[in-house]
Amino acid sequence: MQRIACLIEYIGTNFAGYQVQPNGRTVQQEIETSLMKLHKGQDIKVSASGRTDAGVHAKGQVIHFDSPLSIPADRWAKALNTLLPRDIRIIASQYVDTDFHARYTTTGKQYRYKVIRRDDIFMRNRAYYVPHSLDIEAMREACGYMLGTHDFSSFCAANTSVEDKVRTITQCEIAEHDDELNFILAGNGFLYNMVRIAVGTLLEVGSGKRSPSEVAQIISSENRKAAGKTAPAHGLYLWSVTYAKPLFIRENER
Amino acid sequence: MQRIACLIEYIGTNFAGYQVQPNGRTVQQEIETSLMKLHKGQDIKVSASGRTDAGVHAKGQVIHFDSPLSIPADRWAKALNTLLPRDIRIIASQYVDTDFHARYTTTGKQYRYKVIRRDDIFMRNRAYYVPHSLDIEAMREACGYMLGTHDFSSFCAANTSVEDKVRTITQCEIAEHDDELNFILAGNGFLYNMVRIAVGTLLEVGSGKRSPSEVAQIISSENRKAAGKTAPAHGLYLWSVTYAKPLFIRENER
Repeated sequence: MQRIACLIEYIGTNFAGYQVQPNGRTVQQEIETSLMKLHKGQDIKVSASGRTDAGVHAKGQVIHFDSPLSIPADRWAKALNTLLPRDIRIIASQYVDTDFHARYTTTGKQYRYKVIRRDDIFMRNRAYYVPHSLDIEAMREACGYMLGTHDFSSFCAANTSVEDKVRTITQCEIAEHDDELNFILAGNGFLYNMVRIAVGTLLEVGSGKRSPSEVAQIISSENRKAAGKTAPAHGLYLWSVTYAKPLFIRENER
Repeated sequence: MQRIACLIEYIGTNFAGYQVQPNGRTVQQEIETSLMKLHKGQDIKVSASGRTDAGVHAKGQVIHFDSPLSIPADRWAKALNTLLPRDIRIIASQYVDTDFHARYTTTGKQYRYKVIRRDDIFMRNRAYYVPHSLDIEAMREACGYMLGTHDFSSFCAANTSVEDKVRTITQCEIAEHDDELNFILAGNGFLYNMVRIAVGTLLEVGSGKRSPSEVAQIISSENRKAAGKTAPAHGLYLWSVTYAKPLFIRENER
């Protein structure tokens, strides 16, 4: 048996999320179905860096699986891409040590959240359209309060069972490209809905409903009700996942 | 009766083209169906600046129609957008003189053709993926030969009935954004498939199959067989249409 890791992208729109579930089409199920075809009916289980919700996209999700087949590393991507549906693609594939685990050995993740400020049908389901004006400088000031190690209970969906809600955020910034805002958040780990709640709160700062310094108070309250609304899923992208050893060399992209 | 002009965009992927036809979903049919609802069953005919083929997108198509209804100009866009499917959107609407005609009074058009050089599922159906390397400087040199007034028979689909194939190209350039190339062509009018044949030919120059100066010879041959392949429809966008009087004020966008 050898362990293979893959860098994958998918358009979340027509999935009920990443993880296999009884009802609805999922990314994991599509990949496992394709792997079963490659393995002549043998069941191959796939592990990902983490799940993504329905509608959430991925530009740099990482998965791994074990296989008895011996084929050149890059052929895994090619073979799977011929079997996968058009909204999932394997960008790269390589053999890894068996102590690598897509989920348990991650050292960090980056998410991006796209907001568009002019309606554009080509971006529907791929960015969140905010028609009103936004104070970008106020949002950037608020981003500063997100940095560092905090208990992020206020930015975690209330129905989560995770006990330790302390996470370290190493990047929280807003990049502007024409009419598009990219909220970039990176850290050692993220709680359930954490990015979407953070973006929803930052947008309330941008709309003038909250002051930037309120974000510090929201964090210290450790109370989900103190934070803003959860921004919709369709603007969110799992952008990249990092491991102790660099796994895939890929240029950074917009 | 008053004449209304609209600036519209659509994603061409799920249309059999702009123009109404017996089989297949068309942009014109969707707009006429929505107008009929607004007019309580009355049939309203729509005229566009020109048709677009199946799979071709529009960011700045212009249409007009006549209506007995008197509603504020910008309400036409809002009312139609509530009725139209999600892959067509009215960007702006305004009243125009009855001597305005979306097709017969155009003074020029701009098309853009998007080529991506790295596969990206988010751009599938929206750009043409060219995996091999391209010599952009060679293509830019070739673009120069397209400029000016020429008989463009070589860049016209063979089955066209149009007699006069002389057109004036005022802009032919290639803009680069990250991994995306935008072929921008503007002129007083375009023959059937002209942009797609031009881009297909320029890509053959970029691939080293032809020299840049061959484009001059292709034009003077006045023979479709001398030019390159027709580039696929899904990379093409009708970007803007101009009239003697500026019709819609809109920022230029990528």
